[in-house]
Amino acid sequence: MHKTVDMELGANVLSANARIAEENLRKLRKHGIVSFDFTGSIGSGKTLLIERMLDILNKKGKRAAAIAGDVAGDDDYSRFRKHGVPAHNLNTGKECHLDAHMIDHALEEMKLDGLDVMFIENVGNLVCPTDFPLGTDKRLVVISVTEGDDMVRKHPVIFSLADFIVINKVDLAKAIEVDPKVLVRDARKLRPKAPVFLTDAKHGKGVPDLMKAMGIW
Amino acid sequence: MHKTVDMELGANVLSANARIAEENLRKLRKHGIVSFDFTGSIGSGKTLLIERMLDILNKKGKRAAAIAGDVAGDDDYSRFRKHGVPAHNLNTGKECHLDAHMIDHALEEMKLDGLDVMFIENVGNLVCPTDFPLGTDKRLVVISVTEGDDMVRKHPVIFSLADFIVINKVDLAKAIEVDPKVLVRDARKLRPKAPVFLTDAKHGKGVPDLMKAMGIW
Repeated sequence: MHKTVDMELGANVLSANARIAEENLRKLRKHGIVSFDFTGSIGSGKTLLIERMLDILNKKGKRAAAIAGDVAGDDDYSRFRKHGVPAHNLNTGKECHLDAHMIDHALEEMKLDGLDVMFIENVGNLVCPTDFPLGTDKRLVVISVTEGDDMVRKHPVIFSLADFIVINKVDLAKAIEVDPKVLVRDARKLRPKAPVFLTDAKHGKGVPDLMKAMGIW
Repeated sequence: MHKTVDMELGANVLSANARIAEENLRKLRKHGIVSFDFTGSIGSGKTLLIERMLDILNKKGKRAAAIAGDVAGDDDYSRFRKHGVPAHNLNTGKECHLDAHMIDHALEEMKLDGLDVMFIENVGNLVCPTDFPLGTDKRLVVISVTEGDDMVRKHPVIFSLADFIVINKVDLAKAIEVDPKVLVRDARKLRPKAPVFLTDAKHGKGVPDLMKAMGIW
């Protein structure tokens, strides 16, 4: 019995999320904003990657904003604010992913007029966000070499659905003795033309190529 | 309405899990087995830490076994098997944590007679496993410095409940420019006497002290 209730409830939650996600996307596009959902493992460097992009967009005169999703605290939000861009903080409490409803509220509170790009940093997690589209144009999955060479094959679903796969902290590959090629190979097994990018966000390497692919260079 | 159903259903699931966890613990203790649930962030080095402990216990003539929990694949299971110990693989599919019911099934299939220690490696996640005790004597939370210095304050709940907090990959602290002291300080803010251990599982450093605290040295 529980199983059935659970499955029905789950289906309702997912279809409600998908509907709100569509509304979010429509709202963002209506304002001429291109939007990205940064999913990825915890500590993989999502925040720093977004910070690098904010700096570049600032220099180009493009107006970007960022929503920080975390279980608790405002570390990432504070980092975004330092770049002088509109930012919003979302704490999920015990939830391991953002959902479209939370983004809907965030968008209501943000001034969207004049913005060009919206970055949303999801909760660091390679499982939970999979089923919850937020209503962005594209989704990235960011991992780092420091997590080991088995991250892709351990989480096939989220990588199969990603628009961009980012392997970060490649500057540490030698120190950690992890070959990024293994991660690329595993991604190619899932998707022969997987859009994989190697980055070193700390030193800004690989970020322009990724931004070009994202259409925001 | 959904919220209420969801909350009731959630409460049922959690109380059922807690009941099965108690049964698992009773079963393990009846066999004289001391057991540990290794939670922690993805790629933080949980598997390698357990492998180091298996080697040490093998040398001491203690019999240990390991259960590998992962979303997909058998990488960790295969690594445990190489140490010549009984091992069991659990794939959670789309779930971001193990639960007591899965462990109950694993224990049914494993030969428990003669075992001294049971290691369970949970799915790498700092949120989901919190509410799901598996029925082990103690729980560890393993993070690594490579994830950044904000991991503890971003996940207060799981660290508040941990029996042992392990900060791994301290050999990479300089390369990644993360000070482990910040993580220790944040842990002490949550719990003045937080049982924090700094390890470098790759080179075996800090592992004996941790095992002594765990009572398996």
